Amino acid sequence: MNDDSSTRIAAALRDWIADAAPGARLPSTRTLVEHHGASPVTVQRALKLLTTQGLVETRPGVGTFVRAARTTRPADYGWQTAALGPRPAGAGTLSTSLRTVANDVIALHSGYPARDLLPERLVRTALTRAARSEAAINRSPVAGMPELQQWFADELGSQSPTDVTPPAASDVIVLPGSQSCLSAVFRALVLRGQPLLMESPTYWGALHAATQAGVEVVPIPSGPHGPDPEQLDRAFEETGARLFYAQPTYANPTGAQWTPGLAQSVLDVVRRHRAFVLEDDWAHDFGIDSEPRPLAAHDDAGHVIYLRSLTKSVSPAIRIAAVIARGPARERILTDIGASSMYVSGTLQAAALDVVTQPGWLPHQRRTREALRDRRDLLLRCLREHTPQAHVEHVPAGGLNLWARLPDGTAVEPLADRCRAAGLMIAPGTEWFPAEPSGPYVRLNFSGPDPSGFGAGAQILGRMLDA
Amino acid sequence: MNDDSSTRIAAALRDWIADAAPGARLPSTRTLVEHHGASPVTVQRALKLLTTQGLVETRPGVGTFVRAARTTRPADYGWQTAALGPRPAGAGTLSTSLRTVANDVIALHSGYPARDLLPERLVRTALTRAARSEAAINRSPVAGMPELQQWFADELGSQSPTDVTPPAASDVIVLPGSQSCLSAVFRALVLRGQPLLMESPTYWGALHAATQAGVEVVPIPSGPHGPDPEQLDRAFEETGARLFYAQPTYANPTGAQWTPGLAQSVLDVVRRHRAFVLEDDWAHDFGIDSEPRPLAAHDDAGHVIYLRSLTKSVSPAIRIAAVIARGPARERILTDIGASSMYVSGTLQAAALDVVTQPGWLPHQRRTREALRDRRDLLLRCLREHTPQAHVEHVPAGGLNLWARLPDGTAVEPLADRCRAAGLMIAPGTEWFPAEPSGPYVRLNFSGPDPSGFGAGAQILGRMLDA
Repeated sequence: MNDDSSTRIAAALRDWIADAAPGARLPSTRTLVEHHGASPVTVQRALKLLTTQGLVETRPGVGTFVRAARTTRPADYGWQTAALGPRPAGAGTLSTSLRTVANDVIALHSGYPARDLLPERLVRTALTRAARSEAAINRSPVAGMPELQQWFADELGSQSPTDVTPPAASDVIVLPGSQSCLSAVFRALVLRGQPLLMESPTYWGALHAATQAGVEVVPIPSGPHGPDPEQLDRAFEETGARLFYAQPTYANPTGAQWTPGLAQSVLDVVRRHRAFVLEDDWAHDFGIDSEPRPLAAHDDAGHVIYLRSLTKSVSPAIRIAAVIARGPARERILTDIGASSMYVSGTLQAAALDVVTQPGWLPHQRRTREALRDRRDLLLRCLREHTPQAHVEHVPAGGLNLWARLPDGTAVEPLADRCRAAGLMIAPGTEWFPAEPSGPYVRLNFSGPDPSGFGAGAQILGRMLDA
Repeated sequence: MNDDSSTRIAAALRDWIADAAPGARLPSTRTLVEHHGASPVTVQRALKLLTTQGLVETRPGVGTFVRAARTTRPADYGWQTAALGPRPAGAGTLSTSLRTVANDVIALHSGYPARDLLPERLVRTALTRAARSEAAINRSPVAGMPELQQWFADELGSQSPTDVTPPAASDVIVLPGSQSCLSAVFRALVLRGQPLLMESPTYWGALHAATQAGVEVVPIPSGPHGPDPEQLDRAFEETGARLFYAQPTYANPTGAQWTPGLAQSVLDVVRRHRAFVLEDDWAHDFGIDSEPRPLAAHDDAGHVIYLRSLTKSVSPAIRIAAVIARGPARERILTDIGASSMYVSGTLQAAALDVVTQPGWLPHQRRTREALRDRRDLLLRCLREHTPQAHVEHVPAGGLNLWARLPDGTAVEPLADRCRAAGLMIAPGTEWFPAEPSGPYVRLNFSGPDPSGFGAGAQILGRMLDA
């Protein structure tokens, strides 16, 4: 471990390389060790440095060579344009909410909680433990580690009333993040070109997955109180759809949580049409004023396919989600997942299970709940004070976002551009609508870094709305 | 850390629960701590034990409750059968090579190297380091960590001749395993129902992904010397296909490595048809008698889409692969990957990069090469001695498998069943053929656990062939 020595050896070798022919073989590690009186590790470090700088290249088991000078021509990929044909309809760029930004920007656009809302200590401990365990080396079963399947089943089962059979561990399929579940379920249960009912507005990632699956999205209007079961009933009737994608708990972006009555009505509609709901319980760990009430806890006849993710509540670097499905539908989904992702890293599965079963997990969740409440209320106050033009119809009882309606006629995308130029990132509501937006909305995330910037952010938004 | 105390507390609570009504709230952790004179950690451990046993359930932030007795009815998912409709053509079960088996079985069926061939110490160190780094908490960019993109680009670029422009880091997309690349590339570059040329026999996982993508597989016969460029030319001509999936280096299952001349001819054919090759360089780290020679190193016009995986050489628990593609095709593929997996765990990316840039990686690769040579040669000797009926046409210069032809008329699937009953797992060759098999083959993997069983395994195979 002597960085100075390795830098010195690298410098000496750079001189040697300057005089050498391209392709010349460098002295062996042993020779360099003797010549420089350094350890093999130090010499390797010097060679790695030169490799990174593109001066040498290593051929495993053969040696290290002076890298030949390259002729770099401008590439012409024009032939691909003809070979690829037209771009698939709707294939788009990434959402605003995935953008990373400089530190001095006020970020209300992100979809991910800031670092201080994550259980960082638990995550580091869990990964360190996983590194020492069998999970660092073994291959996981395709459907997931049995203990983690059991945990996901228990989480949902603990909310089932006594007259509903809770899910079994074997109903659970563990996934590398929830996005791969969305595309797998859409592909597995909806034929190409066939209708898929989706709340409008709804999660942009689900819209993206639906586009890729080639299904026809049928929007079901949904607001601060969720969708209207009668409209849903008519849409099933008219389109013959067999799947409805919905977020009954703290919906993204509206923040709606369905009442038990609405949940029951939707379940009745779905049962009557012998159809499925894909329940995306993305914000299960982000209740503020209420507890999450999964729809799936009230179904044991295989109508609700339940998706739960730990990515946002544990760590975006431990991407673990699970889908719970029963009956033949589970087999259909597992076949698709087997062909598209095969199995999930056991290291990540072990670490995720470790985090959520530690004694520190509940206190962390309580702290997160308080922090989210403070942040939500602070952002609401700042908007009221500095941005009276923005109207938050519904204060969400959980989740990470406010959904604000702007004055009629506001062009939200140019507004977002003006805000960005002034140092504020917001997400234009257009990205959450499967068809034309029902009005000018922006989504403001209150879980990003540094809530002390909320006031300044609201001021910028107010100013730009007047500009 | 007192397991006895927590067991004792759990036992006391079990008595309490036996008298309690379903749904009753347990005494608070604080009360239990005082009552039993134990630490909060010990009490939590006791509660976790009871949760695992299904006796209590915890509602985060609320308390722990006696779990209500459940009425379990046999479920009727019959309605799903009608809702789902016919099973998609070709949707199958998992390959033999993913099966896990008991320790006393001789396993020649697996697709994964045994534990003693993995860089276990490097993996554990790398994961421990990643647990301490920013990579445990941060979200990775969609296309991957820039340093890891650079490493994959350098690996391929270091094999490019000087008149070929090497790939840039920005041409690389990091993936959670190579399976997700196969399905993404097939979907992105081949329209549903359109032809996809594939070597026959070829990797079953690619066949699985092709089925799922709904493309029409056109088999190109390929043997110990790879495909015939004239046949490939005719197939492009007759079908109008624009993609050829191939494994030019130690193909799975045949072990073929294309000569530089064949590689050049295939590239010429592909260029002439303005088409793509998806080069699956799955065994890049498993050269035995030769070095891998990626086709992609000789193309800078965007014809070769290059797939490299570290899953088998680093750890199946660190599932990291990368695809290198240039031009508009890369955008098309990235759009699909964005919709189907979004981004890859930064922890795994950091750990993978750490392993392959450690000084210990090259010595590990050298040891693996020697171990694979010993295992391959041992299995060949055992087959020659005990299974003269099995004919290995081609001794592979790398990879993990022997591809053995059995006497004409052998029914390979019943044979595999008989072998399994006698304590030997083999993979019937049928799984590697897109259409009817060209003969009775089995794939024998020499990288599984315990090569000392090879002799007994060959004896069983010989006996069962005569049975």
